[in-house]
Amino acid sequence: MNSTPGSEERLSPEQLEVWRAFDRAHASVARQLETDLVELHRLPLAWYEVLARLAEADEHRLRMSQLADMVMLSPSGMTRLIDRMINAGLIRRVPAEKDARGTYAALADAGLARLDEAADTHERGVRDYLISRFDDGELDRFAAFLHRVAE
Amino acid sequence: MNSTPGSEERLSPEQLEVWRAFDRAHASVARQLETDLVELHRLPLAWYEVLARLAEADEHRLRMSQLADMVMLSPSGMTRLIDRMINAGLIRRVPAEKDARGTYAALADAGLARLDEAADTHERGVRDYLISRFDDGELDRFAAFLHRVAE
Repeated sequence: MNSTPGSEERLSPEQLEVWRAFDRAHASVARQLETDLVELHRLPLAWYEVLARLAEADEHRLRMSQLADMVMLSPSGMTRLIDRMINAGLIRRVPAEKDARGTYAALADAGLARLDEAADTHERGVRDYLISRFDDGELDRFAAFLHRVAE
Repeated sequence: MNSTPGSEERLSPEQLEVWRAFDRAHASVARQLETDLVELHRLPLAWYEVLARLAEADEHRLRMSQLADMVMLSPSGMTRLIDRMINAGLIRRVPAEKDARGTYAALADAGLARLDEAADTHERGVRDYLISRFDDGELDRFAAFLHRVAE
C-alpha cells in the first residue's frame, strides 16, 4: 500500500492472504450453519450458541459478561441479543444474589426444547462444513493451530 | 444434546470443540485488528476491508454485489455500510454504464488517504496476531487447511 521504515518486517502478499483465507473459511462455515438453523428452526447461529452455552452451564445459567466472552459479542451486542431472546421466551434474566454482582441469563424450558430440536442440525452442519474436510490427524493439527492463534 | 437415529455419525465432543476453537481464534484476531484500527485510525475493520478491496480493483471500483461477497456481508448489511462510508466521504457511488446492471462503489481520494494511513497498522496486526504464530511450513499447512474449508 505504501512504504515506510521497518520494511524488513513487511508481510508478503501470500502472508497477508492467509488472514483473508481465514476470514473466508470462517464466514463460509458460519453462513452455512446459520442458513440451516434459520431455515429449519428459525434460530440464528448466535441464538443457538447462547442456548448451547447455557445448557452446558451449572444450573443452566451464566453471568451476562461470561456469556458475552463465550459468544464473542460486545457487552452492548450481548444485551440486545439477550433482550430479543427473552422476548422470544427462550431465556430468563435472573438477578444476582445479594453478595454477587451483575445479572444472570438462565435457560427457559422453551429454550431448552428449541435447542434440543436444533442440535442435530447444528451437529450435521459442523460435520459437513468443517470436520468432514479433515482426517483425524489433520483435524488434530488444525485444532492445535487454532489454539495457538486464540491464545 | 439428545439422541436420534443415525447416531453412528455423531461427532465427538473434541470434534464439536474444533468449531468453537475456530470461532474463538477468528474472533480473537478480528477483535485485536479492529481495536488497533479504531484506536489509531477511527476505522472499523469492515471499513478497512472495503477500502482495501476497492484500492486493489480495476479503476478503484467494484460492483456492490462483488464487494458484499468479498467482505462477507449480506446485501442489506453492505448497503448500510456503504451508506455510512459515503457519508464519511471515503467512497462514492457510481451508476453503472448503460449496458451494465447495478451500481458501483468507487474509492474517493479521502478513502485512499485513510487506507494508506492505516495500512501499516493492519499489516502489523496481521503479523502479530496471526502470522507470527507459525513458521513458514506451518503457515503453508494452515493456509491449505483453510482453503479446504472455504471450498
